[in-house]
Parts: sequence; C-alpha cells; structure tokens
Amino acid sequence: MFDLEKRKHFLKKRVSPFKVDARTDVSDLLKRMGGTAFQARNLSKAVDVWEEMLKTRTTIFFGLAGAMVPAGMREVVVFLIKNRFIDCLVSTGANLFHDIHEILGWYHWQGSPYVNDEDLRDAGLDRIYDVYGVEEEFNASDRYIYEFVDKLEKRPYTTREFLYLMGKDLARRGKKEGILTSAYRAGVHIYCPAIADSSIGIALGLRDGDNFIFDVIGDVKETAELTASARASGVIFIGGGIPKNFIQQTEVTANMMCKVSPGHKYALQITSDSPHWGGLSGCTFEEAQSWGKIARDSKRVTVNCDATIALPLIVTALAQRMKGVKRKLPRMDLTDSHRVRKTIWD
Amino acid sequence: MFDLEKRKHFLKKRVSPFKVDARTDVSDLLKRMGGTAFQARNLSKAVDVWEEMLKTRTTIFFGLAGAMVPAGMREVVVFLIKNRFIDCLVSTGANLFHDIHEILGWYHWQGSPYVNDEDLRDAGLDRIYDVYGVEEEFNASDRYIYEFVDKLEKRPYTTREFLYLMGKDLARRGKKEGILTSAYRAGVHIYCPAIADSSIGIALGLRDGDNFIFDVIGDVKETAELTASARASGVIFIGGGIPKNFIQQTEVTANMMCKVSPGHKYALQITSDSPHWGGLSGCTFEEAQSWGKIARDSKRVTVNCDATIALPLIVTALAQRMKGVKRKLPRMDLTDSHRVRKTIWD
Amino acid sequence: MFDLEKRKHFLKKRVSPFKVDARTDVSDLLKRMGGTAFQARNLSKAVDVWEEMLKTRTTIFFGLAGAMVPAGMREVVVFLIKNRFIDCLVSTGANLFHDIHEILGWYHWQGSPYVNDEDLRDAGLDRIYDVYGVEEEFNASDRYIYEFVDKLEKRPYTTREFLYLMGKDLARRGKKEGILTSAYRAGVHIYCPAIADSSIGIALGLRDGDNFIFDVIGDVKETAELTASARASGVIFIGGGIPKNFIQQTEVTANMMCKVSPGHKYALQITSDSPHWGGLSGCTFEEAQSWGKIARDSKRVTVNCDATIALPLIVTALAQRMKGVKRKLPRMDLTDSHRVRKTIWD
Amino acid sequence: MFDLEKRKHFLKKRVSPFKVDARTDVSDLLKRMGGTAFQARNLSKAVDVWEEMLKTRTTIFFGLAGAMVPAGMREVVVFLIKNRFIDCLVSTGANLFHDIHEILGWYHWQGSPYVNDEDLRDAGLDRIYDVYGVEEEFNASDRYIYEFVDKLEKRPYTTREFLYLMGKDLARRGKKEGILTSAYRAGVHIYCPAIADSSIGIALGLRDGDNFIFDVIGDVKETAELTASARASGVIFIGGGIPKNFIQQTEVTANMMCKVSPGHKYALQITSDSPHWGGLSGCTFEEAQSWGKIARDSKRVTVNCDATIALPLIVTALAQRMKGVKRKLPRMDLTDSHRVRKTIWD
Repeated sequence: MFDLEKRKHFLKKRVSPFKVDARTDVSDLLKRMGGTAFQARNLSKAVDVWEEMLKTRTTIFFGLAGAMVPAGMREVVVFLIKNRFIDCLVSTGANLFHDIHEILGWYHWQGSPYVNDEDLRDAGLDRIYDVYGVEEEFNASDRYIYEFVDKLEKRPYTTREFLYLMGKDLARRGKKEGILTSAYRAGVHIYCPAIADSSIGIALGLRDGDNFIFDVIGDVKETAELTASARASGVIFIGGGIPKNFIQQTEVTANMMCKVSPGHKYALQITSDSPHWGGLSGCTFEEAQSWGKIARDSKRVTVNCDATIALPLIVTALAQRMKGVKRKLPRMDLTDSHRVRKTIWD
Repeated sequence: MFDLEKRKHFLKKRVSPFKVDARTDVSDLLKRMGGTAFQARNLSKAVDVWEEMLKTRTTIFFGLAGAMVPAGMREVVVFLIKNRFIDCLVSTGANLFHDIHEILGWYHWQGSPYVNDEDLRDAGLDRIYDVYGVEEEFNASDRYIYEFVDKLEKRPYTTREFLYLMGKDLARRGKKEGILTSAYRAGVHIYCPAIADSSIGIALGLRDGDNFIFDVIGDVKETAELTASARASGVIFIGGGIPKNFIQQTEVTANMMCKVSPGHKYALQITSDSPHWGGLSGCTFEEAQSWGKIARDSKRVTVNCDATIALPLIVTALAQRMKGVKRKLPRMDLTDSHRVRKTIWD
Repeated sequence: MFDLEKRKHFLKKRVSPFKVDARTDVSDLLKRMGGTAFQARNLSKAVDVWEEMLKTRTTIFFGLAGAMVPAGMREVVVFLIKNRFIDCLVSTGANLFHDIHEILGWYHWQGSPYVNDEDLRDAGLDRIYDVYGVEEEFNASDRYIYEFVDKLEKRPYTTREFLYLMGKDLARRGKKEGILTSAYRAGVHIYCPAIADSSIGIALGLRDGDNFIFDVIGDVKETAELTASARASGVIFIGGGIPKNFIQQTEVTANMMCKVSPGHKYALQITSDSPHWGGLSGCTFEEAQSWGKIARDSKRVTVNCDATIALPLIVTALAQRMKGVKRKLPRMDLTDSHRVRKTIWD
Repeated sequence: MFDLEKRKHFLKKRVSPFKVDARTDVSDLLKRMGGTAFQARNLSKAVDVWEEMLKTRTTIFFGLAGAMVPAGMREVVVFLIKNRFIDCLVSTGANLFHDIHEILGWYHWQGSPYVNDEDLRDAGLDRIYDVYGVEEEFNASDRYIYEFVDKLEKRPYTTREFLYLMGKDLARRGKKEGILTSAYRAGVHIYCPAIADSSIGIALGLRDGDNFIFDVIGDVKETAELTASARASGVIFIGGGIPKNFIQQTEVTANMMCKVSPGHKYALQITSDSPHWGGLSGCTFEEAQSWGKIARDSKRVTVNCDATIALPLIVTALAQRMKGVKRKLPRMDLTDSHRVRKTIWD
C-alpha cells in the first residue's frame, strides 16, 4: 500500500530523546538537543554551522538588531570580537549608542514591563521593555558624541571609519571594554547603515553649522568588496532589520560588479519574526537563495528564539569547542575597495 | 526637573552583562542570565521559581501541551516524574499517545518541514513539523489501546484511573520507560481532560459495542480536591490549551466548593503565544489573578520561548541545584475526593 | 543566462495594486485584496473557498477556539448557524459557556489589558484580555448548568445530545438568541470534546452524588460517521486547539473504519499561531495532508490574522455573495452512526 | 464581598456583539467592530484616531516598513498622499525602490511561498514571500537610479531633496503614478534614513568615481524641525524598523533643541511584532511615553494585524468618512530648518 522505497529515503535518523544529566556542560547539552526537534534542534545546528565557519577560512558577517546591549549582551559581542568569532559587524545605531553609554561608565537597570510609564517619565527614566536608562546619563553620552566630532576633519566618513576612530578615542578614555573599543583593537569592521536613525544621529543633529557628513554609499562599496574578495562568506543575523538586509545585499552588489559571487556559504539567523508577514526580517534563507544572496549549497539554519537566550548559549558552546583552536583569519584589507572594476551594464 | 524620589524607587538593580565563560555549567549559566533582560531573564527566574516550589511543601501541577514527546521531550518528563519534580500531570492526549508509542518500542524520526507532503503520504509517513512517524506503527499503537480496554471492567473510569492502569500494564510489557510507566511507579497523577481528542480516542472509537466511558467530571472533582487540600499549589505550563485551562480552573472549582482557596502560589509558563490575541493559551498570570486562579502574592514568570529549548535547560539546571536535596512530598491521597462538602449556593 | 521556459511557468498573474474606492462594499473589497499578497490575498481566498463549499454539496465542520464569544462574535456564529453556512460546530467549552451566559441575558464588558488585576479581583471582575465579566453573574450561569442536569435521565450523553437538549431548554427560557439555541433550531450539531475543561465542567463538578457522565467516545464515532458518509467535507478552523484536532481526526478515524475517506476537500483556517513551534494549532494544511486528514486535491488557505477581524469580514462578504442562493443541505442523520462496520484490523 | 464602588469604575460599556449585515459598507463595518474586543476593536479605533488627526490641524508622519509595495499597497499609499491623509512619509529604501520599479512600468507577480527557490534562481526570479520579481527588470530599475544621479550637482543631498528630484524626474518619464511622483506633486516630504540599505544604495554603489553623498544628518534636523514647529503631530506606523524609530526620535531631538515638545499627540501602529521580544519594532506606545516621544494625553492604538489587511480597510473607511471634508493642511515649510537655536547643553 505505501511506497517503501520512498519511505527509506525519508527515514534517516531517529529522534533521540533528550536525557537530563546534571553533569552536562553547555556544549554537550546543545549537542544533545541536536537529537530532538523543533527549535532545540535548530539551536543545536546553529552551533555546528558557526563552528564550521570558524574552522574553514570564512569571512563572517554579523548583523546585530534589537536592543541587545541594553539587554545585557554587550560582553557577549565583545567576546565574539576579541576572539575573532566574527569579522565584520553590521549594527543598528541604537546598539552602538548603548555600547558607548556603557563604555563611558553608565549603566542600564533592570525594570518591569508592567509599570506606569507616566511615572517613569516623571522620574526621567527611559524604558526598553524591562530595562530602564537614566535620561540625563543618556544625554551625557549624547554629548560625548556631539563633541567627539570636533576632533574629526571636515570631510565625509564612512560609518566604518567614523566608528573605528570613535573606538580608538573610547579605548583611551572609556571606563569599560565595549563593542567599539574591542573592534578597534581586534581589527573587526563595524558598519552602521542607518547611523542617523539613533542617538548618534540625534547628537550630530544638534550641532550647529555644516552638517557632519557620512559616506553611506562608501559603506555599500566596502562591504560588497569584502564579500567579493572573500574565499567564502558566512552570515549571522541576530534579529532582522537593516543589518540583515545590508549584509544580504552585499552579495547582490558584488554580483552586479561582475564578479563571480555565488552567495554566502553559511547562514545562521536567530529571530522572533515569522515568514508569513512577508517582511525581510522574518524571511527564510530559502527565499534569499532566489535572489542569489545565499549560495545553493549553503549550510543554513534559522532559530526561532529570543536572542538573549540563544546567543549566550551558542557562544558559550562555541567557546568550549574552540578552546585551543587557532582560527585562520580572513584578509580584511580595504585598500582598493573603492575601485569598482565594471558593472553589469558595462 | 525629574522626580528623584520616584526614580530611587525604580532603580534597584543594574543590568549585569552576560559574561561568556567556557567553564560554566548550565545552572550557573542560567543564574547569570538573571542579570540580563527580556526572555533570558525570565528563563533564569523560571529556575528560581521552580526551585522554590521544590523546597517548600508545594503541590506541583504540570500542564503539557504541544507535540513535546515526538519532539524528543519524553525523557525530560520522565526525569521530572521519577525525581518528583512534579506531582500531577495534565496532558493533551497526543503527548500520551506518542509516549505509549515510544514505550512500545517504536520511534519518531527526524525530518524536514520543507518537504512535499504528498510524497510523505505516498510513503505512509505522518509529519509533525520536522518529525516523521510511520503510519502502520502508529496503527500498532492504536491497536494496543484498542485491546487494552478488554482488560477493564464495564464501568466509567476517570482518565487518571484509566491512565494509571495503562501505565501499570505498560510497565510490564513496554520496552522503554515512559511518562505513563514512570508516573505509575512514582505515584504521580496523570489527567487527560480531552482524551477523546487524540489517537486514544480514535482507538476507542473503533471498538464496536457499547462505548468505553470516561468519567471526565470525576477528573474535575479530583483535581479541585487536590488543589483545595494542598498546603500550597504551584503550576507549570508547557504551552497552553486544555492543560493550562484545566489546571487553572481547579482553583475556581475549589473556591466554589466554599473552601478557602487563595489561588496557586507559584506559576511558571513557557509559551510561544502572545496575550494580544485574547486567548487563554497566551494570557498572562496577571489576567489569571483577576479570576482568583493565581494568588495575589504568587511568584510567577512567563518565558516566551520554544519549550524544546527552555525545558531541557531549566530541568538540567534544577537537577544540578537539587542534587542531594530531599524534597518533602505533598499528600496526593484521593480517598474522599468525591465528596463535595457544599457549594457557594448552599 | 536564465531559464526562460521555467520562468514562464512561474509568471501567471501580476500583483494588482489595491485601489481605494469609497463606494466599495465588503465583498468587493475582499475580492480586490485577492490581487495583492501576503495575508490580504489569503483573506480574499478564504471567502472564495468557503463560498465554493456552500455551492457544492459539502458537509462543513466549523472549529471554534479562542474567547470568541466574550469578544463579541456570538452573533456572527449565530448567523452562520441560522443561514446554515456551517453544518457541524466543534467548540471549546468556554465559548459555549459564554454563549449560555449571554443567552441568559448577562453581558460582557469592554475593558483594558492595561489594568491592575488585583483591583479587578477586589471588584469581582474576571478579565479576558480587554473584556470583563462579573463574577456573580458567571456564578448564576454556572447555577443554570448545575440545575439543568436535574432534568436529564441518569445515563451517558454525548456532548452533542447534551448540548442539543440544553439548546432546547434555553430556547424556551433564554433571553437572547445564541449559538446553542440557534443550533437547536437549525439542526446544526455541536460537539465539545473537552467539555469538562470549562465552566460547564466546573458546574457539574460541584454536584454531589454520582457524577454526570459524558460519552466522549460517542462523539468520536458520530463525527467520524458524519465525515465518512459526506459526499465531500470541508473544515473551517477559528484558532487551533481541540476543535482543530478533533475535526481533523474525524478523517483518520473514518479511514481506520475501512471506508474510503480521501481527506477533507476544503480547508480554511484563521490563526495567530505559526508552524515553527511544531504544535497542532499552528500547523499547515500541507502537514495534515501527510496524515491523510486533508485531501491531496483539496482547496485550502491559511489566514494569519486575529479572528475578530477576519471572521466578521469573511462572513459579511459571504452574506453578500449568497444573497438569494439556496444552499443544498447535506444529510446530517446519525441513525446508524454507532455501528462501526469493521476496522483496519478486521 | 466585592468592592462595588470599584466595580462601577470599570464597567462603562458593554461588548456589543457584531451583527452581520450584507448591506453594510466598510466604514460602518469598522465602526461596529468597535463594539467588540481584541484586535477588531483596535482596528476600529485606528480609523477614529486617524480621522481625528485629519479633522484637527495635525502634522501626520507616516512610517512605512515591510515589503508593502511589492504586496500591492502602492496605490493605497498614493491615495494617502494625493488626498493629503499624510504629510510626511518615512520609508525603507526597499518600498521606494519597488515604487520606482512600478512607476517605470514593471510589475510584481503573484507567486507561492511553497516553491523550490533554486528553481526560481534558475528562472531569474526574486521572491518576496508570495511575490516574484524579474531580475533583469530589477536591474533595469537599478540602472535608472544609477543614471539619474548624473543629472544632479556634486554636493550632499538630504534624502528628502534627492527623492523629491527623483519624483520630479519620474513624473515626466514614468508610466504609472507612484509614491515618489504623487509626493512630488502633493508637497508631501519623503525621508529614507537608511537609503544605502536598498537597491537604491546598490545602484549608487556601482558608480565609479566619487561616491554620491547623502546628508542623513540633514534629514534628522529637518524632521525634528517639522515636529517642533507643528501645532500637533501624529504618527502612523506600518510595521516597525527604521521608519518607526526615526519618526519617534524626532520628538527626542526636538526636545533636546530646547523647544517645548510634549510628544506626538496621536499614535497609531499596525504591527505583527510583540512587545516581549524587547525590540523597538514591537514596543508599545506606553513605552514610548517614558521617553517623551508620545504625549501623556495622546490618543493611541496598536493593531496587531498584517498591514495588507488592516491598511486597505482603514483607508477605505477613512475615504468614506472624509468625503466632502476639506482638511486644513499644516505648514511644511523648511526654510529655516537647518538653524538649531540652542541645545540642552547651551
């Protein structure tokens, strides 16, 4: 009655029920989740995919959206940078602003989402779900940015160069190690395509006189060049938004520059969004394949989970697996990055 | 300008960024998530709330919805039962059917959600997201249930009694330890309020002659009695649905029996649903307070996370924390449970 | 470079941007949504699928989960029943309890989800997201159920028979037309597989003496028989939970009774859940095809939308399209429904 | 037993069950949804809030995220612009690119999310959930942008000025009316804070020579000025992302410029995101109040619904309600917008 040949094709591996063991470490726990199903299985695969990126010579792009720094993820990202588990970070402006804030010695506070926000307004506290920040302290960080620009020349800066110089400045005067400072030290690039859309933009918007100029098209060229010149590229998305789209589009741009660019080879995303709303943030990597953004033979995994849970777990497991392993770093040289050779129309 | 007195009230504890440490164990990792925010913080609190239930004399109700057994969670639940981390399980029929299936020696298989389901139909494979089961094997388990009933007397059975007897039977002839068999051994009650709505119901529906009779109102009385006679009660919900509602309503019933029943003292739920759809599955414990289901001074936490991720993590951490701790078990005696003393209308 | 033959296969119909027109009626508006994408396109298709069910001789099962009656959907369901846009309703107990409550002349109240639930407790108000109910009034409805049973014989009742008799009783003494009363009048069957898990169960649980007995296996047999004897069957799910699973399993049961049952021919669901959590509530109809629950050549559509929005829209559009159309009703006779001819094991 | 004084405070308005009526028009249908609950009630309120914005002298900011133009929403936005139901549009780059694409005479196509994306890659089709686009046609639109820049002077442009000039150019040579062309004609400002993160950025990234320069800080200043000088401001968010954050931050910037800026007076969002993930896209307007972005006494509503459903409904109802009503337009003059008077630090 049933087609048993077909069946053989589908039945490869049994579900292996998760066994609770008090002696387990995090890497092992995640490995054993790989025997289960649903999002636990995806979480497990995420560690494997990232590990493989680290053990092949892959340029790793890391997109960071959502209020991850206020939520206590700053040091996780710093760990990723310091240990070069990532090579290029694309972030929302907000995460970088809150990183600056913590580098300068300010704090975020644990709060509650069940609170009267008018009371918070009275108290000068700004809420991010269950986190509070103090308004004058945020203003102090704004002021740092506002004044930092005085040290720069009057010319356009890519966001990468701007953030590199800010990292350098903060490395000298900051009180804590942060994303910007560790990236400055480790040679990890940071791009912020929507930098004006954040407190960084607000601070610079308050300056009188000529506007400070960001060369956002320069960012596009550089990241496309990085992708095009990589032996292989991998992408990791924490949330969606601009960082996800911007990293995905590097492949499209690289392709249109007439280089052979087959799509990112590795792809991992942690998301709380769903495909059926049609937006880029929740879309599958399969959809991205139709655009040539993700390679046909890529290894890819989507984990539907709050990143505050998934990211610390994955990175802790990676730390255990990479102990004593020396990763070969990809070249991140941008000397000729501004030279587009030719385009599809030439 | 700002009300600094008010502010003091809100600023109690700083966010403490998560530090990656390869040497961490799971309990410690979850403890450190408690310094962060969003769902990681809730996950951390979930361990604390459950730990406190175990260390006070609390009767613990555990609601199990979603396809947790096919997804590899059978042994996690068995661990909870064996170690008496729970006292009373309320489950969907499906989880119990798939438990029977694994006890009888059959397997579930890892599959893919990106598959042509007509091909699976041809192959006689039934899909549960990324898990497959073999149709004839499911039929064999149906047959076990179909024939099991021959051993029973012709009278109504509460689902608890029915499942207890089935656990006893399976303990003798089953090939693996499962939820039903371990509950039989450990004295943990199992209720299945919608037992007809599952392969158990299908199997019994296939029998000719008089219908097998479940005494589902008996289940209502027993569980209300358990709640009413508990020194304190706590609830843990894996998903929503019937198990969540049924456990919540035990407080309402207990109250209407004119006993002083202040609501469940501890409440923990792991859910992928949201409050704004208005359904019971996604509702907050605060909403349940308005009904008197959850006590005013209860300790409660909602974790928005796939249970296949959250449950193994929480239970592993609990296993570490409860090492060497002897829990005092609550009385689970049902001798007089059928005697309703008086109701609100008397 | 691209495979233009393949392309031709994919490009059939252009997106037709939605044109705003103040003179549009609801049916026309939904029709024009059919030219768009994402969930608007699915909503549009939902009307077409339901309309086709009504214009072919299809037995229509309607699953009702979620707090739809408190949310103001009672009269929509009454409309569906009166006009026989559905033939068989499977509901959660809660929806039926709240229907009884409104039939008896009580009300639900508009509230807020941003409220202090301890204040509501003080005030004796029970919250369902942004709806309130008055506790003594709920108790009065409980009492109606509690006393209604006195009129019944001492024997097991299927939930269908029980609800039919209650509908008859309420038709005489109720103050409003409701789901139960209109179903009684229109010959629409109502099943409630988890009837104990609701205020109906609570009310009956408060009765002293022998427990009232529901024949829930009888429900399984009857609904399988209805499916097996239908020329074609269609399913409509408002939310997931028990009603969805119960209706889907009628095909499995029918099949195991060795009748040729090819799966439901039409399938429409309105859901706020997602497939990636692995549960039955959020699963696709494609998954259901692997089980043989939904026919291979079925017409099917999933609308990801709050049912309080989608249902009134769809039903209003249907009302416009069915004006003057006389639907041929399917036979709903259950005379021999308890006779299972033979099973797969005979 | 219960506090009846408290109760009186909570019970103001009954739920009024939705009555199906084939003769209803869309405005009336939405009005009657206002008597229900959950998201239907919010959808109804959304029309009221927007209507009030239009009937008071309010500057209306409209944030557009998600793939709304490919999904068939171009003409809805054009209607909003032409009829001046909005005054200032903040959009993702993607929506504007797809608008340009349709203005130039190309189409999007209805597709399926259940498709093999490698086949689509072979066929040169790019997928956006259930919509396809033809790759060479996208390249042709890219080329339009690539060449358009030749007509501009070598100096920084705000995205508003750039998009205004492009709208002017397209108004002459385009084949259809679109967002850019209608905004050019109607004097509605368009901002695109992350313009580099889209095919617009890709096209400009392909140009050799000096990079085209966007003055994104100029955008920040202008929009803050618009907000600060408005008699009252209202915000409407379709999805979250950059547009939502950018519009919200105009209030923060305006405040820091030492103007009295009390927060936006009206706030309406249509979202498929949830607050509990902690991100800006899903956050409540209450959270925004703590930052001073939304006024204390604002009228605000969140509708959890796919925008392809909610937006056409709301706009059709508005079209009916505004028939014959002449809206008084707010001043949108930017003459002195670049002059920041003083900041909080002066």
